[in-house]
Amino acid sequence: MTTLETTTRTKLSRLPERGRFDTDTIHAILDAMPMCHVAYMRDGKPAILPTLQWREADRVFWHGSTGAASHLQGREDEVCLNVCIFDGLVLARSAFHHSANYRSVTIFGTPESIVDHDEKTQLMKNFVEGLFPGRWDRLRPVKDKEIRATSILSLPITEASAKIRTGPPADDDEDYAFNVWAGVLPIASAFEAPQADQFTAADVERPGYLFGRSIG
Amino acid sequence: MTTLETTTRTKLSRLPERGRFDTDTIHAILDAMPMCHVAYMRDGKPAILPTLQWREADRVFWHGSTGAASHLQGREDEVCLNVCIFDGLVLARSAFHHSANYRSVTIFGTPESIVDHDEKTQLMKNFVEGLFPGRWDRLRPVKDKEIRATSILSLPITEASAKIRTGPPADDDEDYAFNVWAGVLPIASAFEAPQADQFTAADVERPGYLFGRSIG
Repeated sequence: MTTLETTTRTKLSRLPERGRFDTDTIHAILDAMPMCHVAYMRDGKPAILPTLQWREADRVFWHGSTGAASHLQGREDEVCLNVCIFDGLVLARSAFHHSANYRSVTIFGTPESIVDHDEKTQLMKNFVEGLFPGRWDRLRPVKDKEIRATSILSLPITEASAKIRTGPPADDDEDYAFNVWAGVLPIASAFEAPQADQFTAADVERPGYLFGRSIG
Repeated sequence: MTTLETTTRTKLSRLPERGRFDTDTIHAILDAMPMCHVAYMRDGKPAILPTLQWREADRVFWHGSTGAASHLQGREDEVCLNVCIFDGLVLARSAFHHSANYRSVTIFGTPESIVDHDEKTQLMKNFVEGLFPGRWDRLRPVKDKEIRATSILSLPITEASAKIRTGPPADDDEDYAFNVWAGVLPIASAFEAPQADQFTAADVERPGYLFGRSIG
C-alpha cells in the first residue's frame, strides 16, 4: 500500500474542500488525463514544463529530449507534478463564492532518471500502448538512437494528494433566496473525429483506439 | 508594445516547434483558457497551484485566499505561470515522433500583490464580468470582508512566450510509406448544458452567458 504523506494547497476556491489521499482516487485522476505540469528549478527560479505523463503501478513517468534543460535539471532537484482536470465553472449568488469544479493531483519528489536502454524501450512501449493499445507493434520499429535521445523521468506516487471540488455552489445561508441563476456550467473534453494525414492510404485500417475514447 | 524577452522550453515533443513572442498570440491563448498553473517556491522547493487567471491589457491576474501559502509566498519570489491548452494527440509512424498538439503560454516574473481595496473590488468585478458579462450587478453585493479575505496577484505579460504545435505528424522521410494510420486525434473542450442548483427558482432568468460558449 502506497503511503501518501503530504498534502498541498491547490485551492481554486475558498470553499471547504476535501483533500484526498487514497490511492484509487489519485490513480483515477492520473489515468484520466495525460497532460500534466511539472514545476522544477531552473537557475534558482521555478519553471513549468507542460508535458504528458503516464502511470505504471505506483509511479508516474514523463519523457522528453535528453538535451532539454527541464530534463537535465530535473534529475537532481525536487520537482512538483500536477494534473488538473477542469470540470466546470461554479456560479454562486455572491461573487465571493464563485468557484471552479476540478480534479487535481499533486506529487512532490526528486525524479529518477531511467538510464537502462531496455528499460527505457519498455517504458516507451508502455506509454504508446497505454494510449493506443496494439499500436507499438504496427509502427516502424524504434531505433537505438531514438531511445538514447529520449530522457525518461519518474516519480513515486508517495508524497501525493488529490483535491476535488464537485457539485453546486456553496452560498452563504442568507443568500440562497437571492433571485439569480446559480449552479454549474460543466466543461467536458472529448476526442473528436480522427484526422488522417495526407500520406495515410485510404484503405489503411483505422484502429479502434481512434474512436469512442474519453478524456478527462 | 509589450516586450517579450524570454523564451522557455515547453516542448511536448522533440519536433521542431515555433516559439512565438507576438502579443496577439499570447493574449489569444490566455483569453481562451482561464485555467492556469502557477509554479512558486515553497520552503525552498517548487510547488504548483492550479488556479484561474484572467487578463487585463498587458497583465495577467489570479486570486486566492489571503491565508494560502501560495499567495503569501508569491509576493516576494519569482513565479512561473503557464496556460496550456491540450489540442490533440499526434500519431506518427514511429513511436519517436508521436506528439501532442497544444497551445501554451509561459510567463515569468515577480507577482505584484494588489492591496488597494477599491482596486481589488474592481478587479474582482472584472474577473466575474469577463466570464459572465452582466452578472456582477445581479449578484448579492460584495462585502468588504470578502475583499479583505481575497488576495489578488498580478504579473506583467513581458517575460513571456508562446509555444504552439499544430497539424499532422512530422515523420522521418523514409517512414511515410509505412502502412499504419497516422494523423491527429483532436481534443476539444466545451461547456455543457448549465445545471441550476436546487435553490434556483424555476422561472429565474437564464443568462445568455450560460449558452453557446466555447473554451480552449
